[in-house]
Amino acid sequence: MNILITNDDGIHAPGIFALKKALEIIGNVLVVAPDTERSAVGHAITLSDPLRVSEVYKDDSHFGWAVNGTPADCVKLGIRCISKKPIDIVVSGINLGPNTATNIMYSGTVSAAAEAVIMGVPGLAISLTSFDTPEFEYSSRLAQQLTKKIIENGLPEGTLLNVNVPPLKPEEIEGIVITRQGKGRYEESFDKRIDPNNRTYYWLSGKRMNLDHEDDVDDVVIRSNKVSITPVRYDLTDTDMLEKLQRWNIEK
Amino acid sequence: MNILITNDDGIHAPGIFALKKALEIIGNVLVVAPDTERSAVGHAITLSDPLRVSEVYKDDSHFGWAVNGTPADCVKLGIRCISKKPIDIVVSGINLGPNTATNIMYSGTVSAAAEAVIMGVPGLAISLTSFDTPEFEYSSRLAQQLTKKIIENGLPEGTLLNVNVPPLKPEEIEGIVITRQGKGRYEESFDKRIDPNNRTYYWLSGKRMNLDHEDDVDDVVIRSNKVSITPVRYDLTDTDMLEKLQRWNIEK
Repeated sequence: MNILITNDDGIHAPGIFALKKALEIIGNVLVVAPDTERSAVGHAITLSDPLRVSEVYKDDSHFGWAVNGTPADCVKLGIRCISKKPIDIVVSGINLGPNTATNIMYSGTVSAAAEAVIMGVPGLAISLTSFDTPEFEYSSRLAQQLTKKIIENGLPEGTLLNVNVPPLKPEEIEGIVITRQGKGRYEESFDKRIDPNNRTYYWLSGKRMNLDHEDDVDDVVIRSNKVSITPVRYDLTDTDMLEKLQRWNIEK
Repeated sequence: MNILITNDDGIHAPGIFALKKALEIIGNVLVVAPDTERSAVGHAITLSDPLRVSEVYKDDSHFGWAVNGTPADCVKLGIRCISKKPIDIVVSGINLGPNTATNIMYSGTVSAAAEAVIMGVPGLAISLTSFDTPEFEYSSRLAQQLTKKIIENGLPEGTLLNVNVPPLKPEEIEGIVITRQGKGRYEESFDKRIDPNNRTYYWLSGKRMNLDHEDDVDDVVIRSNKVSITPVRYDLTDTDMLEKLQRWNIEK
């Protein structure tokens, strides 16, 4: 099995190291990841700048390839240029911080798996729901299991799995729930400041709003020490709305 | 009616000028748009850099506000900081180039309308399906009509309208079709080059693949001189897959 792994925390993040170690046991792993952190880049691709690829070593041996681009760029380059063999699955992570609810829209981690899916390759995104507890033992084992399951069972065209794992030891994980994407979002605010040259600037910040309460929603599940697995699809058509729009009588 | 308009071609693009002119007839228009072109940025937001806002004049009068950020940043800043009144609708465009099928994923134009929807404000994205025929007469008139219709009828939570208009004169437009998102995508290739310092770099390029043939798909409709209107939703859950995943017997 040929596995391409990437992330949005950058090739030097601990999560991609843990992921590589776990997946090497079940297949050939190729690492193609951003050279620096590319969080909240959404599904950006680089059209107006050249992309450069450089080899990264860890402990004196080849670790992977760093790209001065986004996670989606890494997937495109990895599949089309860097890999000598066809890629069977793309696994993105292990991200630090949750990728649940509305966050999925901004997530570089999820967008890498989405890029795979667009290219016809199955995709898996995996995140640890903590920014400061790099507890990768359980999440990397789960990534291994799910990679095998996806290869065995396949995924529908256009669908990836988005997995969020609480930052707990294996024995503390209380279960796995198949979930829907929640509606939770950030209530953003902008911090208005004055720079030393007397010019105004803004920093985006915000407070996470928990808007979900149903038991089968990603954000609710991760708060109860369980793993959330959401099937995410990239046909964005609102099919319920198709018929209603016909009745709007839009004039040519 | 308070209308926020933005785009991904940048505040100096002709499409946003045409859009402003058309929408000023039906409401108060606030322009907040990227200072330069931000195509293919997907749903990126700027977390790691300060955002700056500068006033833009056209013909000696105030035109709008330029932001050194993405279309999604512009929507957030416009709604939260720049507008003194609540925004009733966000209209993004008029983009040069189609935003159909898989392209929606990468589109800054569509992501601006998506950001509005996430913030609970109705969103409309409108694109001209040509890169070099700035024929804005019909598309700006349609933007005006649809803005009014959206305010009248409302849109479901999490749904925006994504509109693509052929670059034709009003009398040449053959109709309006409510469509589904197509599966068409780019077959990408990378052009490998050597720079003057003997280092390798890659340019992303590609050829559009038309994978759709059904009459109600965005890409098919725009090829037949008709306008495509797709309702796009941002609950990405693959609901068909929820039940199937239960049968995968994923082990804790």
